[in-house]
Amino acid sequence: MTLPLQADPEVIAEGVNLVWVFVATFLVFFMHAGFGMLESGQVRSKNVANQLTKNVLTWGIGVVAYFVVGAGVSVAIAALTTGSGLSGVFAHLDAGSTGWANLLFGAAFSMVAASIVSGAVAERAQLGGYLVFTVFVGALIYPVATGLTWGGGFLSQLGFADFAGGAIVHMVGGICGLVAAYVVGPRIGRFDDDGSSNVIPGHSLPYAVLGTLILAFGWYGFNVGTAVSVFQVNEAGELALADYAYAGRVAINTALVMGAGSIGAALVGYVRGGKVDPLMTANGLLAGLVSVCSIAAVASWRGTLVVGLIAGIQVVLVFDLLERVGIDDVCAVFPVHGSAGLLSALAYPFVNTTSAFSVTQLGIQVVGVVVLAAWAAGATLAVYGVLKLLGRARVDREEELEGLDASEHGIETYPEFGGSVVDESGPRGPPGGMPTADGGEVTDDD
Amino acid sequence: MTLPLQADPEVIAEGVNLVWVFVATFLVFFMHAGFGMLESGQVRSKNVANQLTKNVLTWGIGVVAYFVVGAGVSVAIAALTTGSGLSGVFAHLDAGSTGWANLLFGAAFSMVAASIVSGAVAERAQLGGYLVFTVFVGALIYPVATGLTWGGGFLSQLGFADFAGGAIVHMVGGICGLVAAYVVGPRIGRFDDDGSSNVIPGHSLPYAVLGTLILAFGWYGFNVGTAVSVFQVNEAGELALADYAYAGRVAINTALVMGAGSIGAALVGYVRGGKVDPLMTANGLLAGLVSVCSIAAVASWRGTLVVGLIAGIQVVLVFDLLERVGIDDVCAVFPVHGSAGLLSALAYPFVNTTSAFSVTQLGIQVVGVVVLAAWAAGATLAVYGVLKLLGRARVDREEELEGLDASEHGIETYPEFGGSVVDESGPRGPPGGMPTADGGEVTDDD
Amino acid sequence: MTLPLQADPEVIAEGVNLVWVFVATFLVFFMHAGFGMLESGQVRSKNVANQLTKNVLTWGIGVVAYFVVGAGVSVAIAALTTGSGLSGVFAHLDAGSTGWANLLFGAAFSMVAASIVSGAVAERAQLGGYLVFTVFVGALIYPVATGLTWGGGFLSQLGFADFAGGAIVHMVGGICGLVAAYVVGPRIGRFDDDGSSNVIPGHSLPYAVLGTLILAFGWYGFNVGTAVSVFQVNEAGELALADYAYAGRVAINTALVMGAGSIGAALVGYVRGGKVDPLMTANGLLAGLVSVCSIAAVASWRGTLVVGLIAGIQVVLVFDLLERVGIDDVCAVFPVHGSAGLLSALAYPFVNTTSAFSVTQLGIQVVGVVVLAAWAAGATLAVYGVLKLLGRARVDREEELEGLDASEHGIETYPEFGGSVVDESGPRGPPGGMPTADGGEVTDDD
Repeated sequence: MTLPLQADPEVIAEGVNLVWVFVATFLVFFMHAGFGMLESGQVRSKNVANQLTKNVLTWGIGVVAYFVVGAGVSVAIAALTTGSGLSGVFAHLDAGSTGWANLLFGAAFSMVAASIVSGAVAERAQLGGYLVFTVFVGALIYPVATGLTWGGGFLSQLGFADFAGGAIVHMVGGICGLVAAYVVGPRIGRFDDDGSSNVIPGHSLPYAVLGTLILAFGWYGFNVGTAVSVFQVNEAGELALADYAYAGRVAINTALVMGAGSIGAALVGYVRGGKVDPLMTANGLLAGLVSVCSIAAVASWRGTLVVGLIAGIQVVLVFDLLERVGIDDVCAVFPVHGSAGLLSALAYPFVNTTSAFSVTQLGIQVVGVVVLAAWAAGATLAVYGVLKLLGRARVDREEELEGLDASEHGIETYPEFGGSVVDESGPRGPPGGMPTADGGEVTDDD
Repeated sequence: MTLPLQADPEVIAEGVNLVWVFVATFLVFFMHAGFGMLESGQVRSKNVANQLTKNVLTWGIGVVAYFVVGAGVSVAIAALTTGSGLSGVFAHLDAGSTGWANLLFGAAFSMVAASIVSGAVAERAQLGGYLVFTVFVGALIYPVATGLTWGGGFLSQLGFADFAGGAIVHMVGGICGLVAAYVVGPRIGRFDDDGSSNVIPGHSLPYAVLGTLILAFGWYGFNVGTAVSVFQVNEAGELALADYAYAGRVAINTALVMGAGSIGAALVGYVRGGKVDPLMTANGLLAGLVSVCSIAAVASWRGTLVVGLIAGIQVVLVFDLLERVGIDDVCAVFPVHGSAGLLSALAYPFVNTTSAFSVTQLGIQVVGVVVLAAWAAGATLAVYGVLKLLGRARVDREEELEGLDASEHGIETYPEFGGSVVDESGPRGPPGGMPTADGGEVTDDD
Repeated sequence: MTLPLQADPEVIAEGVNLVWVFVATFLVFFMHAGFGMLESGQVRSKNVANQLTKNVLTWGIGVVAYFVVGAGVSVAIAALTTGSGLSGVFAHLDAGSTGWANLLFGAAFSMVAASIVSGAVAERAQLGGYLVFTVFVGALIYPVATGLTWGGGFLSQLGFADFAGGAIVHMVGGICGLVAAYVVGPRIGRFDDDGSSNVIPGHSLPYAVLGTLILAFGWYGFNVGTAVSVFQVNEAGELALADYAYAGRVAINTALVMGAGSIGAALVGYVRGGKVDPLMTANGLLAGLVSVCSIAAVASWRGTLVVGLIAGIQVVLVFDLLERVGIDDVCAVFPVHGSAGLLSALAYPFVNTTSAFSVTQLGIQVVGVVVLAAWAAGATLAVYGVLKLLGRARVDREEELEGLDASEHGIETYPEFGGSVVDESGPRGPPGGMPTADGGEVTDDD
């Protein structure tokens, strides 16, 4: 060992932190595949391609919108609400290696919020209108939420606590979805004239469960990755553990809350009708994960289990409530992300092991969720309201009945299977389908 | 470089090790999605939702059982079999950041063992009884196996070697599955009265192969991650590489053994009937991965290829043997995990490049696998035997014929596709199905 | 802090670099699952099992071929084209921990090149012949490409720049696929005698999109992981950031180019017929990722967006061109990997922010892609030409019509669904199928 004096703590911290932020970012990015499968499994086969196209382009358009505009908006909002200057608004465009890595972590978060919306308005929202809304989420709606909070804006200065974005990401996304679903209106056949509701089952439960488990995998990046710095250099110039002082707690809480949420939702079905509902069990697991976001770094595992159990139970109850008031939230995004995210932020002062219960903190949390919810709801109402006025919110009745795959894309998702070809006019082609792909018109040119 | 003296080796080791254990843990967790797809692809469409629900709740219930009870049982068993004290039994409940991270790595391993079982008893095991058994796996059966070995118990002290759990995780899981399948009995129609067997093909080969590849991806965390410490601080107080001295060997052996296993299984089919069996090829890849678990850190790549090839070949032969003795192991979990895990542990002294072949070591390995197998078999026999006596092991004949999705969950997994609606009484509804989702009863409330 | 002098920079660099190369390698390995789903979704249900078997065995056989032979061939080619010695040809077989980890990263890259081919020749290439070709890709074709470039061979010495293998991996793979598809000939029914083409839709768009998103996830390992060293020890013996000086740039460019590529391909469909094509949008995202490979470390985000947009647009146009000349590239691997990889390598001097535009560099890039393309095309022509002469390139007409699952594997991928049982002779069994699995022949032995 000839040169033992040369390991600069700053260099160690920057390199290792960068490894970790990359790992976390890639995992959060992969949640996109989870949303894609979760949502496409919950729509009918005639709308699958449309749902997947929305998913792919949510990332495609949204990440550009966030990078070019949104990240600067976040800085601007933080500056405007605290009276500081606007000099950093374009800094992210030339942020350098570590800066861009952290920026990408933020971009992946923004697209989680955006993806949530597509599940709420599935099976009837126009592709074009939805993509316009996605640009607004990436460039404006989500950045304002982060500018007010993580970016250092007034909610942050007030003391609003939301570790991994139970409110900032999930509640905001869930409320955007809820309001958009309300503006767009329910699918044909979802509710009868007397107000009673009909179940419209999705075409593939395995897709939905696979999507759930991909999301759960990526969520480790979302939560544990939010403990984003492995090392820091302390005031004495020494290398020190940074967020890693609580990263293990975040990890174990994230793992356990999946259990609590899935058990909670499974129990509701079992208690009500003696049967465990598979999709609701999966949704309960996800709601559990949402409910731990605000509290993962400070809650005990016991507190986490309680909050997760409540999150799982409320998924079923809130979904029923939406049915009763006539809002068609196709993929249950409000119960899973919206109300569970609200729960998470409000639970914070009750389960915080780092300080005694504080009414003041509870008040701050209430202010935070009200401001964020009002912003998300108002902005969505404005954008989707204008889209509706322009006739861009929803496809025509005929297009909806035919399916969005045919009307918006001119394709059939499963050309060989019976599903989507059975419509009101009865089966097309031979039973079991597949007239095009393998039919009699093939010729031999071999 | 103004402060070059301040990079404490302990801090570096703790931070980087934590990054690595997180990466490995997340990958092992994702194996859960692999099991879900692998197993649901191998059941008929009328039992898919049930299989997926078992999968989700295996994690949901099992991880809580392992955390609250099992991790302590492991410590207790290690203490009891070595005469040391029981003081550490509840330590994991307040383990702190690094402790919890390592605990979660163990919890993810425990749920691999538990997930294996659900594949063996698929298509006829009651959900409730299965979940009770899962609690036993997470809280007792698996923890006893780790307490005897990795936890420091008597097999560990004897010198039993099982690097990544070929025997401790996979053989134990495979034997639990085998015994549970025996106690539950074969599916209706699997075997005729004359003892001949019928193939009951799964409903989706792509799910099974996707599950296989997800498992293979996660297995890098399972094997390479078991080389869990990047750094250690040596006796001189210097930062030193820890498990990373052999991590590259583990990685290359893990990659190559997939080849050997898949080629082995493919060859059996080809030699027998001139055709390569896709599902068996995938199972061979997995059996290869199991067979490298005990030996990955010490075997040469040549030794690994030989063991993997044997593992791939035996998958087909052992599966045939089970058929002949009338055990209905739906997803071939015993050939893939049980016998391949046994092979791995017994191969250890033969392929160990770090010491000469030792009959003593072979004897220790035999003792180890006998003890672990006896424990797994006995415990499963007891728990599933009681469940059978209580009528909780298996669904009724009518429920099994109807399918567990309908009988246990009241749902149809693929409401739009023909699969599950074709039963003994012929097709229901229009050909190609989907009477509910898109049928004539929809009304226009738009 | 009692022992502050003992953190050796060499040890820190080796340990952390190893963590990172493992993360990147695992991600690139997972791309294999992406290719499996992407390609199996684009074939008809009667050929799905065959496609998946090819995918599993591509890794199984290919990784062994690359490890045992290919890695040495790469070293030999580098030595032979630069006049240095051949002493290192077998070094990789006993490389040690870090050596094997880096080797595995290379092996995972080689199997990306190999996997691309299976998508081009899908639905009619014989399994056996394809696997022989895969051995050649792993043992010879890809290693020669890397020996000439990354291995230090003459293109490297010339100054050919290809950061993450836009040309070396993707263009080479795409050209191998194109030539193989040409030699094997189009599928029955793909082109009519008058030269007009018929669309043969794949059986599952969700598989294709899921595969796309898995590939995108793994691509972060492919691109950002190619910035493979976190730390290095500089000449003064100090620990220093290595590739991480530009890793953040690579990451943000990789994320943004998905947007540009998917938007480009979506726009072409929209401009042409008013509809966004879901599969082409996904292919555009992938072509964007290919197009950033050569330039990711040096291009600005603006340059990246322009190149990605062109990559997305050209996917549709090049695919049309292939149709017009009568080459049946089933999964569009040439537009996605071949021409987009060519674009990437040629774009390098135009978007390089680290130096002014250089005609010399452009000339070098042209030489590089010509040499690599000629090698890939020539080698494929030779190997697949011989396979064709031996009757091993393609299945018989009857086998192709029946489907490769039945003819090459004797199985049905979806025994319960209508798809593959509907052939020229009409539906077999009851509508919706599943005569075997759940039919009347089951007996009760319970």
